Amino acid sequence: MAILRGMIVDCAVYEHGKRRAGDLTLDQAGAACRSNEGFVWLGLVEPSAEELESIAREFHLHELAVEDAVKAQQRPKVELFGETLLVVVKTVTHPDPAHGIEVGELLVFVNADFIITVRHGDGELSSVRERVESQPERLAHGTGVVLYAILDHVVDGYGDVAQTIDGEIQAVEREVFSAERTNPAEQIYKLEREVLDLYRAVAPLLEAVDEIVEGRFDAIPKELHEYFRDVHDHLRRVTGRVNGFRELLSSALQANLTQVSVRQNEDMRKISAWVAIAAVPTMVAGIYGMNFDHMPELHWRYGYFTVLALIALVCFALYRRFKRVGWL
Amino acid sequence: MAILRGMIVDCAVYEHGKRRAGDLTLDQAGAACRSNEGFVWLGLVEPSAEELESIAREFHLHELAVEDAVKAQQRPKVELFGETLLVVVKTVTHPDPAHGIEVGELLVFVNADFIITVRHGDGELSSVRERVESQPERLAHGTGVVLYAILDHVVDGYGDVAQTIDGEIQAVEREVFSAERTNPAEQIYKLEREVLDLYRAVAPLLEAVDEIVEGRFDAIPKELHEYFRDVHDHLRRVTGRVNGFRELLSSALQANLTQVSVRQNEDMRKISAWVAIAAVPTMVAGIYGMNFDHMPELHWRYGYFTVLALIALVCFALYRRFKRVGWL
Amino acid sequence: MAILRGMIVDCAVYEHGKRRAGDLTLDQAGAACRSNEGFVWLGLVEPSAEELESIAREFHLHELAVEDAVKAQQRPKVELFGETLLVVVKTVTHPDPAHGIEVGELLVFVNADFIITVRHGDGELSSVRERVESQPERLAHGTGVVLYAILDHVVDGYGDVAQTIDGEIQAVEREVFSAERTNPAEQIYKLEREVLDLYRAVAPLLEAVDEIVEGRFDAIPKELHEYFRDVHDHLRRVTGRVNGFRELLSSALQANLTQVSVRQNEDMRKISAWVAIAAVPTMVAGIYGMNFDHMPELHWRYGYFTVLALIALVCFALYRRFKRVGWL
Amino acid sequence: MAILRGMIVDCAVYEHGKRRAGDLTLDQAGAACRSNEGFVWLGLVEPSAEELESIAREFHLHELAVEDAVKAQQRPKVELFGETLLVVVKTVTHPDPAHGIEVGELLVFVNADFIITVRHGDGELSSVRERVESQPERLAHGTGVVLYAILDHVVDGYGDVAQTIDGEIQAVEREVFSAERTNPAEQIYKLEREVLDLYRAVAPLLEAVDEIVEGRFDAIPKELHEYFRDVHDHLRRVTGRVNGFRELLSSALQANLTQVSVRQNEDMRKISAWVAIAAVPTMVAGIYGMNFDHMPELHWRYGYFTVLALIALVCFALYRRFKRVGWL
Amino acid sequence: MAILRGMIVDCAVYEHGKRRAGDLTLDQAGAACRSNEGFVWLGLVEPSAEELESIAREFHLHELAVEDAVKAQQRPKVELFGETLLVVVKTVTHPDPAHGIEVGELLVFVNADFIITVRHGDGELSSVRERVESQPERLAHGTGVVLYAILDHVVDGYGDVAQTIDGEIQAVEREVFSAERTNPAEQIYKLEREVLDLYRAVAPLLEAVDEIVEGRFDAIPKELHEYFRDVHDHLRRVTGRVNGFRELLSSALQANLTQVSVRQNEDMRKISAWVAIAAVPTMVAGIYGMNFDHMPELHWRYGYFTVLALIALVCFALYRRFKRVGWL
Repeated sequence: MAILRGMIVDCAVYEHGKRRAGDLTLDQAGAACRSNEGFVWLGLVEPSAEELESIAREFHLHELAVEDAVKAQQRPKVELFGETLLVVVKTVTHPDPAHGIEVGELLVFVNADFIITVRHGDGELSSVRERVESQPERLAHGTGVVLYAILDHVVDGYGDVAQTIDGEIQAVEREVFSAERTNPAEQIYKLEREVLDLYRAVAPLLEAVDEIVEGRFDAIPKELHEYFRDVHDHLRRVTGRVNGFRELLSSALQANLTQVSVRQNEDMRKISAWVAIAAVPTMVAGIYGMNFDHMPELHWRYGYFTVLALIALVCFALYRRFKRVGWL
Repeated sequence: MAILRGMIVDCAVYEHGKRRAGDLTLDQAGAACRSNEGFVWLGLVEPSAEELESIAREFHLHELAVEDAVKAQQRPKVELFGETLLVVVKTVTHPDPAHGIEVGELLVFVNADFIITVRHGDGELSSVRERVESQPERLAHGTGVVLYAILDHVVDGYGDVAQTIDGEIQAVEREVFSAERTNPAEQIYKLEREVLDLYRAVAPLLEAVDEIVEGRFDAIPKELHEYFRDVHDHLRRVTGRVNGFRELLSSALQANLTQVSVRQNEDMRKISAWVAIAAVPTMVAGIYGMNFDHMPELHWRYGYFTVLALIALVCFALYRRFKRVGWL
Repeated sequence: MAILRGMIVDCAVYEHGKRRAGDLTLDQAGAACRSNEGFVWLGLVEPSAEELESIAREFHLHELAVEDAVKAQQRPKVELFGETLLVVVKTVTHPDPAHGIEVGELLVFVNADFIITVRHGDGELSSVRERVESQPERLAHGTGVVLYAILDHVVDGYGDVAQTIDGEIQAVEREVFSAERTNPAEQIYKLEREVLDLYRAVAPLLEAVDEIVEGRFDAIPKELHEYFRDVHDHLRRVTGRVNGFRELLSSALQANLTQVSVRQNEDMRKISAWVAIAAVPTMVAGIYGMNFDHMPELHWRYGYFTVLALIALVCFALYRRFKRVGWL
Repeated sequence: MAILRGMIVDCAVYEHGKRRAGDLTLDQAGAACRSNEGFVWLGLVEPSAEELESIAREFHLHELAVEDAVKAQQRPKVELFGETLLVVVKTVTHPDPAHGIEVGELLVFVNADFIITVRHGDGELSSVRERVESQPERLAHGTGVVLYAILDHVVDGYGDVAQTIDGEIQAVEREVFSAERTNPAEQIYKLEREVLDLYRAVAPLLEAVDEIVEGRFDAIPKELHEYFRDVHDHLRRVTGRVNGFRELLSSALQANLTQVSVRQNEDMRKISAWVAIAAVPTMVAGIYGMNFDHMPELHWRYGYFTVLALIALVCFALYRRFKRVGWL
Repeated sequence: MAILRGMIVDCAVYEHGKRRAGDLTLDQAGAACRSNEGFVWLGLVEPSAEELESIAREFHLHELAVEDAVKAQQRPKVELFGETLLVVVKTVTHPDPAHGIEVGELLVFVNADFIITVRHGDGELSSVRERVESQPERLAHGTGVVLYAILDHVVDGYGDVAQTIDGEIQAVEREVFSAERTNPAEQIYKLEREVLDLYRAVAPLLEAVDEIVEGRFDAIPKELHEYFRDVHDHLRRVTGRVNGFRELLSSALQANLTQVSVRQNEDMRKISAWVAIAAVPTMVAGIYGMNFDHMPELHWRYGYFTVLALIALVCFALYRRFKRVGWL
């Protein structure tokens, strides 16, 4: 059993909403489950296949459910295996703007006697455990309260990430419409990828939690449905925002194309206008550089200065005109 | 109780459709509720968490519902907590074209005995109170009438904002297709954002009001369903318009790209055409600027003037031609 | 009652499918309704609020339904108020290609005893009245037949407008792909707006007529359902076409961007190619315009003509080449 | 009755799966129907209104159904009029790639006693008749078998057209991504129109056949449902392909814009690069064409040749560089 | 019967989860089926029509089902013909990045007595047979287990292909946003085609497996539903990813247009800026190349060098400025 210690984060029995003192071995936890006194909350982190096997034997988890827990590449879902509910959720964090969002996975096996949480990647639950332990009167309702607290925590995380992404989108919008010569196409595209990842975490969970709210699972007592409805509501809010993000980013990509091409065309127009102005003296000078025997202007006393003045005048007139029509 | 005064906008008891004279303290209001004589309408504005706590205690509001009311970041929804209905709506105003729409939130706790409105941001209800108080025979039907009046008022506000946005879209369309050298990409994008905000206020409410119309909540007496159906109808009209806006703006963004690139290309073409015309005299002058010993034209009496005339002729011909094909 | 005369277009009692001779005053019409002999068909055009009030009193119309009829900004719908059905439809005409489609509104109050039509904007019904009066055996089925005839007429109008728009779309397509230097972006966008207006008239009606076909309203006798199913079918056909229009116009806008940018780039390429050709003589002439003491070519007898010939040759070769690769 | 002969393609009585010898007049066909011996299959092609009238009288067809059959502008549908089923399908052929697909219409009136097919446009049914007549044991099941054979034939036609369009799309894709200087925007757009036409023929029929499969019509015996399910399946396959076509064509239009603009920009870049190279000799030659008294280079013995060599060197260096960065 | 040998891959009887030793002829297999001892698993590969005929006779397969098996152009589906279930799935492999995905077809006829697999194209099942034969306790549940194992295998294949495509999409994204002068429009488009093919294999199967999970087919015993739910879950995950791919690729195409046009415009701007710089010496040199009698600068001692220095200075200043604004 020694090998199991590393992946067990915390393991405790809760009776009448209170944590029984002392740490438990896995056998003791299994025994406590079967004794029908309170329930066990076992927290695991990235267990190996064999570790999960031995836990599955102890708590009679379904073979397919365990397979899901090892691979950690599941869609968010709620599924019933016999008496035990398997809830799979994605945890989403956004630790560093440069790297985008990070998606972890959390699997929760829950029935009246135990709740086992299996965590892959980010998504610490110790704060959740502290919070539920601080409300013994609530915790007395059983494992469903713990499941609610976990979902509430995860969905709050979605909200935070959505908030962060909202900020990033606004930053990118400012860049798109700024006078600066920037092309944030890559940022917009990366945001689209992030939003898609978030969507794929949130949207299937919405459906899954809906099934809980509708009371399909006896494992969740009826008096808790209002709490899960609250989670469902937050999920819908996040989904609504995420859908809005997708629409905005798609428009931003198109608007960026317009802005970038406008700015680049302005540069080209400016350069071309200057070249056009420079073509005038070249042309005039070329004419008076011709070698005809009879070119009366060449012999005028102030011919040269007159021509210089003429050139300057025409160039200035062109400059004024180009300025007025907005080409310079 | 003194601290509560600031956030209470108005508080009154209504019996048989008539307002009982005099202001109420919170205790009196609570007592009036329990006495089953008429109903209380309590109007709050941005209450603090503690203020809401004490109101929740007085009127037995559900913990989760109160949490929603403090945060004021809910989706529009209708939810039943025990006997009490919680209706959350977004109020939308468009005070200033430069700043886009502003979204507030209004939470309504309503059952047979009381109606409590909690307002965040804009969305004054005093005009609603005046209107319902002026129709005592209607008001005698109870709190449902007040809820209807509030929803009707809020949804009328949506209609007004949709009207304003419609005007702005038409203005931006004119700009897109005007001969002016403008690029309203940013305005179009901002309108898309506004329309999305409006959509997110309107669409979930549609669903929520639908549940009222279908008679899922006993708190709304059957004789009022026709009134809520009317609200529902207005909401659908607004939703229809908003969906139209989204489609139009998406097309406008694309059309704008076309127009902007057409106009910029026209400028470039014009400049290039002038440069091409100027290349002709430069070329001819270059040839007669060569220093060959034997260039018979150079010694002709009118060689210079002939060449000048030739250049002018060619340039004029080019100008005519470019004008005809639309390049100038 | 005199004030009412202006807005009443026609008012008659129909017994056993036949029109009773003579015009009716409003009181007579009301009395006829109550007598259960046949039914009354009252046609109004843009009545004022007070006029509608008095009619509502005479025929016991619901307050909310009357409100709808005054404002004339309803979504198409079918609603039951007590015994009376309110049918709201949009009438669509396309009088002038330059101004796009015009949308009017038609409200029909119908029960076993009367049918009241309130018209706003275009949408003359006299032809409908003539047609139903010419088929007394059908008209004997009661007010439902009149409602069918009206809907059939309105939906035929949709079909005509869809036909016109189809023609306009084909015209704009030809323009997009023509060799002409046109940019029909604005026409495409205007067509999108028209199609959207048509869609918003047609789509909600589809839903509403579906409810009639499914037999939700007792006011429409069962033997007429096949007729309304026929109307429903025509509506679906129009909706299908309108959806096709939206897709086509969206593609046309994109294709137009391609065509316009292709044509403009072709112009630029042509101008640039000519400028490139002109650069050759300028360059060569420049070289022989240098003032070095020792430039043997300058002293050759036919140096000048050789160079001229060379320049002509190179330019012609370039011209041939540019022609071949499609740049000229 | 003579006038009817032209539009009757074939008319026969089938008893126990076998065709009774000899041609029938319309009266004989009507009589055969009423005799309950086998069934009549009457095939018409583009009958006039009066011709259809007399047939409707003979076979008691519903007035609205007959109206549909005359106009031939129906949506695909299955509708029950009394005992008789009216099935409307679009026949689609693609005779000539230059002209796109052609849509005809086929109306089938079918009940236990007769099956009347009314054809508008293409869509010969003689091959279907041959096939069913060659399987008497199947044909003995009655008119439903004929209806199945017709639908099977029509839906096979959809599959063929989808196949042809698939080939055309692949051809256009090759053109989009070829190195050739082509702009297949118009072909893509025309394919979009064709696909839309095909979609409008196929999609509503899917729904209609679904109703048959679900057994809503007693006219189709239960033992044939599997056959209609097979038709339904083929329809879904075609619909799936058609939806794929729409998506592909929309992407192809966008990709084409990219390719066309890339190719055109490459041309411009190439021309500009050559102009830039030609600017160097012009510039250098200009400098040595100046008329200053003191320009030592001019008097060097090999000044001219040195400068020529220099110019050639610089131009060659530029050429190499432009080649390397991909501008030439 | 000899002709059948080629297309039979493997044929065995399974009793109590164990394979009965020895190969079977087709007659023996048919006899084994009828004896109700265990079940037969017959594996075919691309059988001809006659071969299938004889198998259909032996196992009483439905005519339409057999027709499907010959053509091998079916949509994925699950259909019941009498007692026998026909499951059609597409096998997808991605053997070579240059050629995209390859789609094969697998038809499974399954009832309590036999399971017949008909394979077209890729999709070897020998590994599946090995796996199920290694778990006799599971295999004892009957043919449903084999069907599950096949579906599990096929859906795992989808997951692998989705993984490969994901990698390809990321590669193309890197190319889009790289500094290199590449235009991966064609790759993006080809990926869109692949994703569409994958979608058309996956999406209809999702629906079909859903019907199994919901327990519509008695052929699949209830204790296996959890296993099929697992397959369903994997399918949904793949579908989710595929939908994400479609959205990403559509954005990538748009982003690529932006990037390509930005890079090409940068090239043009650079070339034009150099041409503009070169225009300055040309212009100045032209002026001092004029042949006026009185041009004092020409006679200055250091006039030439001063002008050269001036030209160099101006060109350098321009170069600095263009560098600063990002044009070079």
